[in-house]
Amino acid sequence: MKRTYFAIAAGAALVSLFYGAGTTAVNAADQKAEPATMMDIDLAHAVKVANAAAAKSETLKCRMDIAVVDAGGNLKTFMRQDGAWLGSIDIAIKKAKTARYFDMNTGKIGELSQPGKPLYNIEVSNGGLITFPGGVPLKNAAGDVIGAIGVSGSSVENDHACAEAGAAVLTAK
Amino acid sequence: MKRTYFAIAAGAALVSLFYGAGTTAVNAADQKAEPATMMDIDLAHAVKVANAAAAKSETLKCRMDIAVVDAGGNLKTFMRQDGAWLGSIDIAIKKAKTARYFDMNTGKIGELSQPGKPLYNIEVSNGGLITFPGGVPLKNAAGDVIGAIGVSGSSVENDHACAEAGAAVLTAK
Amino acid sequence: MKRTYFAIAAGAALVSLFYGAGTTAVNAADQKAEPATMMDIDLAHAVKVANAAAAKSETLKCRMDIAVVDAGGNLKTFMRQDGAWLGSIDIAIKKAKTARYFDMNTGKIGELSQPGKPLYNIEVSNGGLITFPGGVPLKNAAGDVIGAIGVSGSSVENDHACAEAGAAVLTAK
Amino acid sequence: MKRTYFAIAAGAALVSLFYGAGTTAVNAADQKAEPATMMDIDLAHAVKVANAAAAKSETLKCRMDIAVVDAGGNLKTFMRQDGAWLGSIDIAIKKAKTARYFDMNTGKIGELSQPGKPLYNIEVSNGGLITFPGGVPLKNAAGDVIGAIGVSGSSVENDHACAEAGAAVLTAK
Repeated sequence: MKRTYFAIAAGAALVSLFYGAGTTAVNAADQKAEPATMMDIDLAHAVKVANAAAAKSETLKCRMDIAVVDAGGNLKTFMRQDGAWLGSIDIAIKKAKTARYFDMNTGKIGELSQPGKPLYNIEVSNGGLITFPGGVPLKNAAGDVIGAIGVSGSSVENDHACAEAGAAVLTAK
Repeated sequence: MKRTYFAIAAGAALVSLFYGAGTTAVNAADQKAEPATMMDIDLAHAVKVANAAAAKSETLKCRMDIAVVDAGGNLKTFMRQDGAWLGSIDIAIKKAKTARYFDMNTGKIGELSQPGKPLYNIEVSNGGLITFPGGVPLKNAAGDVIGAIGVSGSSVENDHACAEAGAAVLTAK
Repeated sequence: MKRTYFAIAAGAALVSLFYGAGTTAVNAADQKAEPATMMDIDLAHAVKVANAAAAKSETLKCRMDIAVVDAGGNLKTFMRQDGAWLGSIDIAIKKAKTARYFDMNTGKIGELSQPGKPLYNIEVSNGGLITFPGGVPLKNAAGDVIGAIGVSGSSVENDHACAEAGAAVLTAK
Repeated sequence: MKRTYFAIAAGAALVSLFYGAGTTAVNAADQKAEPATMMDIDLAHAVKVANAAAAKSETLKCRMDIAVVDAGGNLKTFMRQDGAWLGSIDIAIKKAKTARYFDMNTGKIGELSQPGKPLYNIEVSNGGLITFPGGVPLKNAAGDVIGAIGVSGSSVENDHACAEAGAAVLTAK
């Protein structure tokens, strides 16, 4: 029986799915790297984060581009839901990078980058930053930033809600 | 007798022009791919769109750069009317891409990207977006986005009017 | 019970997993868009392709960056296996784009771009192409190119083998 | 009766086509700007050049990207034949620019840019040059360079043959 890398355990019935190894890749990850102590997000958790954002997008009837970067600000995983804007590919990735580059929600930077504000036009740095909502740092249970998620494809409120939903899975009990 | 690729049938007299094949390339295209069902614009219809925009430009006494991209946002055809601004080459292409990247008129994005608005400085993404009017999605008769047109070279009102004129040929009866 | 977007049905036991909707997202996709007729890869199949490449990477004891682009050459999904080279993020994406841009394996282009060969230094075009092995077009069962996969992170032989393994899932019976 | 900008007179029957003005745009152009004295290619002749290249492509059963730049090296017209490589959009434009930048066939530059040759790696300049065949300067009857054509989408031999066919229309008697 063929197994898939992205398969994520959703219940006891899935425990023996991945390569017949008695556990999924994600379960294995869960066991070796607890969010509480992980200092750099691994693929399994990045996928979990992206999946949670995608699930939120589905409930909002949105079509999102979703990117997760690691502690170094480098792309870890990405998915474009069918029908999501092509222009949001780059924006989702830039939101994730921006959130990690400054360890804060992108929307917060946007407040400071307006005309007359302290960070005016900071967007031209780093090959292009996106400073409106939709980028959120990813933290382990101890509060350390271990990556970031960026979501783009709808209103900034929806983008942010999906990013928050993704980030939440790492700190949820 | 020499035949031309771009020649577009304007009446029965033209039917046997293209390569002596009994039809023009565009007529052939019209017959095999109706706008109602086409999911990615073909060259014949892209040229038709560009021609309509150019014709509108002529009536407005403008000199325009006109670009058409396909469903993937990739350049399909382009023309610069004699005397049109050199700086508008890139702008016309970027307008077309921007309209396809977000499936909306570029001017609509521009309303949201002003200081204090939700998409402030979105223009730094995607290698440069143009968010003032002149970019319009191209739709088939069923309403699916199959590409976009971007026009630049005059006032944004004129740019938009020409883009609209181009887009209209795909849905006109 | 929590459900995940990327979860891919591997058997009857999984059929009712996704959002309690009686089917997984991928199963739904499988049912509505058969690879034989799909003209642009959807997310479900893109993930399937990436998963297959990742599974091959596991068997080869590699750590890969894996990218899938759609028919328009735009990023659809991406994953970086834990420990994979950071420099391979961009290379994997560029390999996928290159394979779609020319509808052939990247290594084939590389043979033609050597000093003295017909396509010498083609790599400077398109914002950077990667012309060594690891990029493979994705085809539906009818042979139409509907996207491409790019893999980077090991020897070019391993990269190519993983890309091939990914591409194979779309045409496998 | 609707008229089109790109319509090009192919015989007496077409003379009254464009906007009912008693002549096509191209005929008007032919009358006001003879290739013999034109110092910068106009749109009508650029389209004529592109059409000729496209017609050659049809006879060769190719699918080409075809670009024409003016005397300033700026894009004048472009068309991508249906099914032509996406990666050849940029290459066709770069070939046209390269041919005009140095007023010679691109393939000639390629001979000089090989390892150990005088122009080694010149391709990295100017935002990317393409130095294999397919770019050809456009000359008026007096031999002045008034633009260039770039063709990409097949073997370099076919690319060059189509570019030559396009260039030939300006000097043909």
